[in-house]
Amino acid sequence: MISQDKLLHFEASEFQERLRKVKESMYRQGMEVLLVTDPANMNYLTGYDGWSFYVHQGVLVFMDRDEPVWFGRMQDSNGARLTTWLADENIVGYTDDYVQSNLKHPMDFVADLLRDRGCERRNLGVEMDNYYFTGQCLESLLDGLPEAGIKNANALVNWARLVKSDKEIDYMKMASRIVENVMRTAIDAIDVGVREGDAAAAVYHAQISGTPEFTGDHSAIFPIMPSGIRTSTAHLSWVDRRYESGDIVLLELSGCKYRYHAPLSRTVIIGEPPAELADIAKAVVDGLNEVLAFIKPGVTGEEVEAKWRSAISGSKVVKESRIGYAYGLNYPPDWGEHTVSLRPGDKNVFQPNMTIHVMPGIWLDKFGFECSEPIYVTEDGCEAFVEFERKLFVK
Amino acid sequence: MISQDKLLHFEASEFQERLRKVKESMYRQGMEVLLVTDPANMNYLTGYDGWSFYVHQGVLVFMDRDEPVWFGRMQDSNGARLTTWLADENIVGYTDDYVQSNLKHPMDFVADLLRDRGCERRNLGVEMDNYYFTGQCLESLLDGLPEAGIKNANALVNWARLVKSDKEIDYMKMASRIVENVMRTAIDAIDVGVREGDAAAAVYHAQISGTPEFTGDHSAIFPIMPSGIRTSTAHLSWVDRRYESGDIVLLELSGCKYRYHAPLSRTVIIGEPPAELADIAKAVVDGLNEVLAFIKPGVTGEEVEAKWRSAISGSKVVKESRIGYAYGLNYPPDWGEHTVSLRPGDKNVFQPNMTIHVMPGIWLDKFGFECSEPIYVTEDGCEAFVEFERKLFVK
Repeated sequence: MISQDKLLHFEASEFQERLRKVKESMYRQGMEVLLVTDPANMNYLTGYDGWSFYVHQGVLVFMDRDEPVWFGRMQDSNGARLTTWLADENIVGYTDDYVQSNLKHPMDFVADLLRDRGCERRNLGVEMDNYYFTGQCLESLLDGLPEAGIKNANALVNWARLVKSDKEIDYMKMASRIVENVMRTAIDAIDVGVREGDAAAAVYHAQISGTPEFTGDHSAIFPIMPSGIRTSTAHLSWVDRRYESGDIVLLELSGCKYRYHAPLSRTVIIGEPPAELADIAKAVVDGLNEVLAFIKPGVTGEEVEAKWRSAISGSKVVKESRIGYAYGLNYPPDWGEHTVSLRPGDKNVFQPNMTIHVMPGIWLDKFGFECSEPIYVTEDGCEAFVEFERKLFVK
Repeated sequence: MISQDKLLHFEASEFQERLRKVKESMYRQGMEVLLVTDPANMNYLTGYDGWSFYVHQGVLVFMDRDEPVWFGRMQDSNGARLTTWLADENIVGYTDDYVQSNLKHPMDFVADLLRDRGCERRNLGVEMDNYYFTGQCLESLLDGLPEAGIKNANALVNWARLVKSDKEIDYMKMASRIVENVMRTAIDAIDVGVREGDAAAAVYHAQISGTPEFTGDHSAIFPIMPSGIRTSTAHLSWVDRRYESGDIVLLELSGCKYRYHAPLSRTVIIGEPPAELADIAKAVVDGLNEVLAFIKPGVTGEEVEAKWRSAISGSKVVKESRIGYAYGLNYPPDWGEHTVSLRPGDKNVFQPNMTIHVMPGIWLDKFGFECSEPIYVTEDGCEAFVEFERKLFVK
């Protein structure tokens, strides 16, 4: 009656190469087994893709086995069969009494699974600061595997994700085509008397309907589009009101394809911009342009930030937080990769096919201004993923 | 230039009552300070509302102080000023070098904050199994506060949220008006030749544009709308293909208002339903109706599940997982409250104004079927939040 095959967006060889990189890191850090709970890392290694990360699940990478093991809730195991390259025997579901219970924890199941495979004394890496590896996960593993050597493997797989393959860059270009439509839609929709929610609805519609050639996927962060005083801070969005003349609206929006993102920020004002905003907009856009001209293989994260700092010196712009970060494949709550951050102290050296959201967001006491660019590093510089005018948009 | 006031959706007295309930639980469990990291619990106690939960943040409740303290990233502290009832002195931002760094962790900041307030030897409750309380959070607190008594306060605030106020029920009714439009939109959009992503785009648009009277907010879970073989599992969704004749489409959708949800599931088939699907649909809808007629104050979660089990006995329906759960206020990745689960062993007694998503989802080897109802318990029974025909929808 129904026919739909396995959906994999990469060749087997690409998954093998990813696994090789991860095992190399495991070896260097003395880990024999790696427990991956970050949904983006699970996807990266196996293809797994579903909104099941609200219960405990993960992928186990064994140094001495070719294939990882996916574990999760039994009702999601068909999802693993449909979206991963793993053989059936490496997809293991736990029963529903493990779900959100005080009596037993899914990590008890993982401890049993490792014991069954003779791994109870192995060095086990865990993603200590990942959203989906809770304090209870740590405690249950320590209880269940008292002889294992538990090590911090936080962001180990994230670092393997830093330099993208050409195929990944292609997907990020598809996401970029989407976000161009999304941003255009948002700027067109915002006007005096329009409900903020109706503008947000148009944004969501554009994110998912995508382009005539391909549709989009859900983004790891919701559309950030606050107005007025709410632009004085980084992560608010629309409320149930109508835009008024004089409103500033921040737009930090995105496109997403096969879980690969394209984030983009712009700012709109309805009516004449006050001089202070116009000055800040000019300084930020000029600074952003200088930073993009500076980025090339060999520079470090902190050098890029220093370039920004010197570019804006003398202007009214005050900016204490990082001005960008690595991004790509992800799931809620973040599209950032938690590796490179453009700020003092970041010694990471830029390489071709690294992908960075250069995002010098400005949030002052009474209003904000945002103009950002997602870029990839090329052989001799960097390329903007998106074509969209860098300026303050006046409606 | 800009004027927008604090946005609070509840009276001060309601926040005070919530705090009283939480302090009562803290007292019973011997906790002097409670660290709340669950974004829904932060919202419940203070009103805080922003997509900033991808960095560490929280609310501290002190047994001996009237007001909690919000802490988070400095660039989000204006968000706390705009969305919480807290005084400025109780909003504390940390600098950006704490963000996603190997050198320092936001929980080091929290340890310092507690020491500054003379709380370094207090009994401190933490939400051990919350997404936003990682293994590293636990370890950093244990390191930073070696003399504190760290206790498991998992779901402590969630349990306080179980019985809703009338105002909360009102917001859930608003979300229910939205989800009726959303579900209608989805069923109308699905047809042979339509791109799945275009149907999903229409769903998102309906979720946010809401009703003529009010707009909607982003949901804690994305629209779950898989087709074909992908309906054999619980948490997949649209892919980049066009619907074909014979496709089954599961729809687990939602409306959201002020972070309060209305989840709703229905199933569509394009073309004539096979007999097996029609049989299962009838058994599930009949079973659901029996369960809804059974629910009233005084029954327990496991009794409700047993009712379901007896209702479907003799049918072809196989269902091993829980058939529902408490839901309401929430943030990604889940709208469930992680308290009551309708399954064997659940001894929780139903009370008026408890809100439950009765969700007996069926996922078989080749296809699935879903028909659910969000309900609230009344004085002598229960009331469906949503008016939407319970059946298999045939297109």
